[in-house]
Amino acid sequence: KLKEMLKRFEPSELVELIEAEEEREQLIIFRLLPLRLATQVFEYLDLEVQKHFLANLSQEKISDILNEMSPDDRTALLEFLPDDFVKELIQTLSEPERKVTLELLGYPEYSVGRLMTPDYIAIRESWTVQQVLDYIRHHGGQSETLSVLYVTDERGVLIDDIRIREFLLADPSKRVSDIMDRRYVSLRAMQDQETAIDVFRKNDRGALPVVNDEGVLFGIVTIDDILDIREEEDTEDIQKLGGSEALDEPYLSIPLLGMIRKRAGWLVILLIGEMFTATAMGFFEEEISKAIVLALFIPLIISAGGNAGSQATSLIIRAMSLGELTLDEWWRVLRRELATGLMLGAILGVVGLVRILLWSRLYPGEYGEHYWLIGFTVGFSLVGIVLWGSLCGSMLPLLLKRLGADPATSSAPFVATLVDVTGLVIYFSFALLFLKGTLL
Amino acid sequence: KLKEMLKRFEPSELVELIEAEEEREQLIIFRLLPLRLATQVFEYLDLEVQKHFLANLSQEKISDILNEMSPDDRTALLEFLPDDFVKELIQTLSEPERKVTLELLGYPEYSVGRLMTPDYIAIRESWTVQQVLDYIRHHGGQSETLSVLYVTDERGVLIDDIRIREFLLADPSKRVSDIMDRRYVSLRAMQDQETAIDVFRKNDRGALPVVNDEGVLFGIVTIDDILDIREEEDTEDIQKLGGSEALDEPYLSIPLLGMIRKRAGWLVILLIGEMFTATAMGFFEEEISKAIVLALFIPLIISAGGNAGSQATSLIIRAMSLGELTLDEWWRVLRRELATGLMLGAILGVVGLVRILLWSRLYPGEYGEHYWLIGFTVGFSLVGIVLWGSLCGSMLPLLLKRLGADPATSSAPFVATLVDVTGLVIYFSFALLFLKGTLL
Ligand SMILES: [Mg+2]
Ligand SMILES: [Mg+2]
Ligand SMILES: [Mg+2]
Ligand SMILES: [Mg+2]
Ligand SMILES: [Mg+2]
Ligand SMILES: [Mg+2]
Ligand SMILES: [Mg+2]
Ligand SMILES: [Mg+2]
Ligand SMILES: [Mg+2]
Ligand SMILES: [Mg+2]
Ligand SMILES: [Mg+2]
Ligand SMILES: [Mg+2]
Ligand SMILES: [Mg+2]
Repeated sequence: KLKEMLKRFEPSELVELIEAEEEREQLIIFRLLPLRLATQVFEYLDLEVQKHFLANLSQEKISDILNEMSPDDRTALLEFLPDDFVKELIQTLSEPERKVTLELLGYPEYSVGRLMTPDYIAIRESWTVQQVLDYIRHHGGQSETLSVLYVTDERGVLIDDIRIREFLLADPSKRVSDIMDRRYVSLRAMQDQETAIDVFRKNDRGALPVVNDEGVLFGIVTIDDILDIREEEDTEDIQKLGGSEALDEPYLSIPLLGMIRKRAGWLVILLIGEMFTATAMGFFEEEISKAIVLALFIPLIISAGGNAGSQATSLIIRAMSLGELTLDEWWRVLRRELATGLMLGAILGVVGLVRILLWSRLYPGEYGEHYWLIGFTVGFSLVGIVLWGSLCGSMLPLLLKRLGADPATSSAPFVATLVDVTGLVIYFSFALLFLKGTLL
Repeated sequence: KLKEMLKRFEPSELVELIEAEEEREQLIIFRLLPLRLATQVFEYLDLEVQKHFLANLSQEKISDILNEMSPDDRTALLEFLPDDFVKELIQTLSEPERKVTLELLGYPEYSVGRLMTPDYIAIRESWTVQQVLDYIRHHGGQSETLSVLYVTDERGVLIDDIRIREFLLADPSKRVSDIMDRRYVSLRAMQDQETAIDVFRKNDRGALPVVNDEGVLFGIVTIDDILDIREEEDTEDIQKLGGSEALDEPYLSIPLLGMIRKRAGWLVILLIGEMFTATAMGFFEEEISKAIVLALFIPLIISAGGNAGSQATSLIIRAMSLGELTLDEWWRVLRRELATGLMLGAILGVVGLVRILLWSRLYPGEYGEHYWLIGFTVGFSLVGIVLWGSLCGSMLPLLLKRLGADPATSSAPFVATLVDVTGLVIYFSFALLFLKGTLL
């Protein structure tokens, strides 16, 4: 009946099915699944649903599932649970699974170690292809992937990684040493996840080996997890770039107070930063009172700088995250942004000037008799501010990286605020330059 | 000598080696590589280097490489070349490769078809595991991946996808039908790439089959290409979110004029949009002249709205791109942003009020005798503007999606501009409310 029917679905279909149900029905469906399928489904459920299940399933069922999960997926789950609960759950693991889990959780957050699984196939170079295939048949069941096999020597040192295709295509009587190329790409457990992404991007492999300082193989990382990590890293970047902290939870499931906390911090910091605009404008209060017309263009001028800065900062942050750009190239970036900023500023400056001249024709008297001078003030200010915005926006992420901080901290709103304050000074300086003696 | 030495490197190492050299040396090194390795290296080179090679290698070498490339990688390359050149290159392909290439290029840009390769292994359910392994040994050499095999019936209709691991672990005398689960996940050639990403995310597979309306299998898509596509899509989103068009080329290699073109468009549009702030402020010119103090807080007020909007829009765009959020859930988003916006606005409003009261104590007379009223004007405006910014920022991407446009068009600067204009109206409305009869 239902139990039989459920077996006909793919894990991903069951996940959708379960997540569409109410909490009570979710548990009922889940309890009907055979262990293997239940584990696969469990791995894909939303963290919220997982937590609910862990709180409501029998101790025994939880223990079964946790023991059945692959070590890397288990680490990924435990990372997100409270420490006390993790300790409790680890107690339900079998001795060997517990050992592995504690080892993996021992690596720092965001390190390659946290993505690792010790379930791989290691072979010897003296074996024949047939021996390898037999070995897989008997010992491969636990391996996280069979798409790459690893050749190690008697001390466990990695000598080669060979795709399974080489074995499938080779004559069974051939020796492993005949199909080895003794070239491989490897990761270190303490490396940053982002390094792993980079290595995967540059090498089409289904999995990469993790070795220690002596070159001893002790784990692998698979590409499906890299896809997940890449998405997480990019989510972080996008959310930071928008000016909030990374949510670390889906938009719709993060508690409201949690979301407010992640967003309020930066908004308050930016508001305080922006208060310097009030201070800056206080200095020019007299000029404004003499020429109210100057106030009209303030939002327009400063926002142009913020927009240019926002463009620059997103382009640079992304280029860095893709590994297209390293710190040593800051000089090339500076030159590019200098040229780009000047050109963009010139374009906007002309548009601004034209707007003011046009309005002065259409509505004579709108900007008084000195409208040409006002036009120049606005035009030149736009050039200066767009250039300044491009420079700030591009250099800030590089500077942050240099200081060991996350470049994505240089968010669009952050750059805009920086440019707003300085932009006012640029604007009023040009105003004094052009309007001294006439309006001012 | 050098030739032998080069063979000891991984393709990714050779790519780095080549890209670090000057153009002439690049060609010299590349010419020394054996065809297979040369092709692998070629696939990973920067587009600029690829173009340079295509322009300088002999017709024969180019033809060899193009014929050796896997069809999906060839499509990915040809997509980026000028039409005339593509036609020329296609002429150098062998008859079967040409046919495949034309077919793949026939699918629309950004469709699953463009990611597809027709090189996969199809098996029959009546075969034994041993027959399958023998079949792979003889016919598997061209297959893009051997990690998943596809069971089809005599009409070519897909019945199941089975991971190679099942065959490697099974008794060789078992039949395919014994290890089939008759469940599979498939793609359609005309689907959007982003759909493919979503399906891969939800199903841990090294490859997914592409079927036509009759369920006939005619290609596969592999996960390594999905990782690339995911990065491209996210690059696009981040660059758009920052307020420029997608560059489509690495930051450092896009020609300067190209970059200016990609950035100038939005900057000009935003400047023109922002001109409405000048118009809006024109309406309140009298109020400003009566109370210059009001002008001081304009940048602070409107930027707070832009910042809140920038946060909201990035969170929503990302949630949509991760498939966490669908259009039907707009109502839940609206409710969340209403609550969040109000809370955030209240926090900022209090900070703004405190700032003004504090300054009025520290520098008596700074804001005149009615500083309480000014404080209220600023405080309430912040509440209104932050709420408004959150609503605009969150609803705009959903609206764009509803209209069939890219949600990421709703960039941080775009939302900020929208909120700047309306923010001024909110601010001056509160000013009239609180200051009528005193300052105004
Ligand atoms: Mg797994
Ligand atoms: Mg190797
Ligand atoms: Mg895994
Ligand atoms: Mg996964
Ligand atoms: Mg990170
Ligand atoms: Mg990051
Ligand atoms: Mg602004
Ligand atoms: Mg390929
Ligand atoms: Mg299946
Ligand atoms: Mg491929
Ligand atoms: Mg690739
Ligand atoms: Mg797209
Ligand atoms: Mg997109």
